Amino acid sequence: MTAKKPGVSRVLIIGGGFAGLECARTLSGDSRFEVTLVDRTNHHLFQPLLYQVATASLAAPDIARSIRQILAGSPNVTVLMDEITAIDPAAKHATGKSGTRYDFDYLLLAAGARTSFFGKAEWERHTLGLKSLADAQAIRRTVLSNLEKAELATDEAERTRLMTIAIVGGGPTGVELSGAFADLVHRSLRTNFRRIDTSKLRVVLIEGSARVLEAFDEDQSEYARQRLKSLGVEVWTGMRVDEVREGALHFTDGTLLEARAIIWAAGVEAQPLTAMLGVPLADRGGRITPQGDLSLPGLPDVFVAGDLVRMKDADDKPVPGVAPAATQMGRHVAKLLQEEKRLEGTRFADRKHELRPRFRYFDKGIMAIIGKNFAVVKAGGMKLRGLPAWFAWLFIHIAFLIGFRNRLAVLLGWAFAYLRDNPQARIIVHPQGGPPH
Amino acid sequence: MTAKKPGVSRVLIIGGGFAGLECARTLSGDSRFEVTLVDRTNHHLFQPLLYQVATASLAAPDIARSIRQILAGSPNVTVLMDEITAIDPAAKHATGKSGTRYDFDYLLLAAGARTSFFGKAEWERHTLGLKSLADAQAIRRTVLSNLEKAELATDEAERTRLMTIAIVGGGPTGVELSGAFADLVHRSLRTNFRRIDTSKLRVVLIEGSARVLEAFDEDQSEYARQRLKSLGVEVWTGMRVDEVREGALHFTDGTLLEARAIIWAAGVEAQPLTAMLGVPLADRGGRITPQGDLSLPGLPDVFVAGDLVRMKDADDKPVPGVAPAATQMGRHVAKLLQEEKRLEGTRFADRKHELRPRFRYFDKGIMAIIGKNFAVVKAGGMKLRGLPAWFAWLFIHIAFLIGFRNRLAVLLGWAFAYLRDNPQARIIVHPQGGPPH
Repeated sequence: MTAKKPGVSRVLIIGGGFAGLECARTLSGDSRFEVTLVDRTNHHLFQPLLYQVATASLAAPDIARSIRQILAGSPNVTVLMDEITAIDPAAKHATGKSGTRYDFDYLLLAAGARTSFFGKAEWERHTLGLKSLADAQAIRRTVLSNLEKAELATDEAERTRLMTIAIVGGGPTGVELSGAFADLVHRSLRTNFRRIDTSKLRVVLIEGSARVLEAFDEDQSEYARQRLKSLGVEVWTGMRVDEVREGALHFTDGTLLEARAIIWAAGVEAQPLTAMLGVPLADRGGRITPQGDLSLPGLPDVFVAGDLVRMKDADDKPVPGVAPAATQMGRHVAKLLQEEKRLEGTRFADRKHELRPRFRYFDKGIMAIIGKNFAVVKAGGMKLRGLPAWFAWLFIHIAFLIGFRNRLAVLLGWAFAYLRDNPQARIIVHPQGGPPH
Repeated sequence: MTAKKPGVSRVLIIGGGFAGLECARTLSGDSRFEVTLVDRTNHHLFQPLLYQVATASLAAPDIARSIRQILAGSPNVTVLMDEITAIDPAAKHATGKSGTRYDFDYLLLAAGARTSFFGKAEWERHTLGLKSLADAQAIRRTVLSNLEKAELATDEAERTRLMTIAIVGGGPTGVELSGAFADLVHRSLRTNFRRIDTSKLRVVLIEGSARVLEAFDEDQSEYARQRLKSLGVEVWTGMRVDEVREGALHFTDGTLLEARAIIWAAGVEAQPLTAMLGVPLADRGGRITPQGDLSLPGLPDVFVAGDLVRMKDADDKPVPGVAPAATQMGRHVAKLLQEEKRLEGTRFADRKHELRPRFRYFDKGIMAIIGKNFAVVKAGGMKLRGLPAWFAWLFIHIAFLIGFRNRLAVLLGWAFAYLRDNPQARIIVHPQGGPPH
């Protein structure tokens, strides 16, 4: 990092997700700040649509955009692709895998979450998570390749395993994935195969608790279950995974489910960077509970935001791990820094930390799509389901996608896929360019 | 493969490129034929636009489409993803890596070409070919990652290496790649970096002979060279590669070019399946020269088509390795089989082999795009260059893309990219989901 300029504060943002990007965009053009945004990847990812890449409806570039492209017009923001390996919050510097040292006056840690396998390496090895584009492409590749292998298979038992998709975790990701896979296989691929009967493909959604979509109301969970059933998804609630083997899930009640595609959507945990801040972690998921202003206790210049935060907001409401919450946190930190800059040299300068506002989450609601044309929405007192909810879902997702071309491409992609039941991204790309077996 | 039905001929097509697909589409719905199309991948690839995926203008699904999706409405065609490992043309069967045995009455080998490294493993290890989607994504990943590393680099020499793209081979692929990379870096990425000066990025196009685009006329080669120069591409003609090392090209005249991205577009060779047919190969590239009707000498029921063919047509003109030639060959074989079916039981049945028409190539011309807005076209007596050529190129490529959604998506993608100098697929996906270093 360059040497400190007088009067200019160096802000280091770790993570280009919703929180980090919003913070950088809010500080963009404010010459009192020199912002460095570091991310392990080169792109901002619109995570809510990741399942559509996994289910072959969208292409990876439809839902991702180069971070430096988004911030190209922000001369005071430097974007670097690097992986932070150490943070010294007291000495105010971080270190990247590239060997680069990042000095800062303020730090925003917004590195997000990753799939949690509850510390079990076996589970991780035999299942597919869904947090990155590479994850989504791996799911697409596995499911489509399994169908190709099933078309060639001569062993009936193996063919059945190849034609079973197990999805562990009945939250929005699991529900959206299972609905989209059921649509893909039972509708779009119906006429594509000559030997296998795609109507026999099983999509099994597994949830440990009593109902899917626990964050929604009970009647919405029941609605989702009914919709999924009518799409041909088997919904297994109250089923707890005991062991994961290659191609097999063992449940605590002795049930065995054999499936060549096992998708793990049962939990997330904070990126392990949270452990480097020297503050106690709030839960086994490695999350951090900051102070009300999002700074850390005893470290007023270090902030956290996004999915790695576990907190209640100024109204004592728990803040969920969703994109709008992350965006709002990122903006909160940026505005707070700007206000503190304004106080510099005034009689309030010494009290600046006390004057900081607490973060207040504006709840825009939660939503989950269930196959084609149906969704559930819970926003404030309003509950929607069915087609109106689906339109709300469509509108909101399109509106929040970054980049006009992306919005149009995604909208058109959906329009064609929905009108013709024909997702167009059904291609298998083998990363090594190698053969299919 | 299922048992032979009386009166129905089993046609095995190896390869779902332009030749194989066209043959299958022509036989589609003709119940006298039971067609099996086997490909190593699950998609038909529009190869002429592959360089646009490599240069971040298009997404992979924009230029590829599931083969079984294209042939979904053809009940007499079975599509299988498998890699053929053995062919016995006399006994009339082939074997796949899956263990499947494919019996046939007629065989069409249309497995296409792959990058030729002239048998040098070192060259293959240190350079990037461009024949598959995975290849294109690897090129995109490498070039974009190198720029990210350059932005972090502290060593000036390494930064220079990271900011050099060497493209070996001055044919259409090399010309199109180098023009598109120059556009990408010098225009689109101009404002994206804070530390490196993207105007200093070198794109070096290397050709062993005296001019680029040798298949075109000399004035067109000269025009291409001038256009490339004005885009900032260094065109090195008459330069022969002697040795390839990691990050370095050594030339026969002693010149050394250091580059962290070396793209190999210097030659292609037939897929090695051609060696299994028991006929002499026509060249070191493993190609086969069939008889005039595209069948093999002594094997009247075995045909070859597409890029693995080296031949002169009925007019004694050499048939080039381009998509229209492959398509025409595929159709020729299908029509010939249909005609032969018609002769069955007639007094011409015994003479059916003599009655076969020879393949005649209808030359639609060749074209190459040079950066934004310029192209050269050579079609019959007509020569175009500049903007009119570019429009011709655009029209033809869009018209031949399979699938309406794809056409529209590609057209829109281009429109936005060209209007705003902003290719939207600038994302790096790490296949293993790992960190960037």
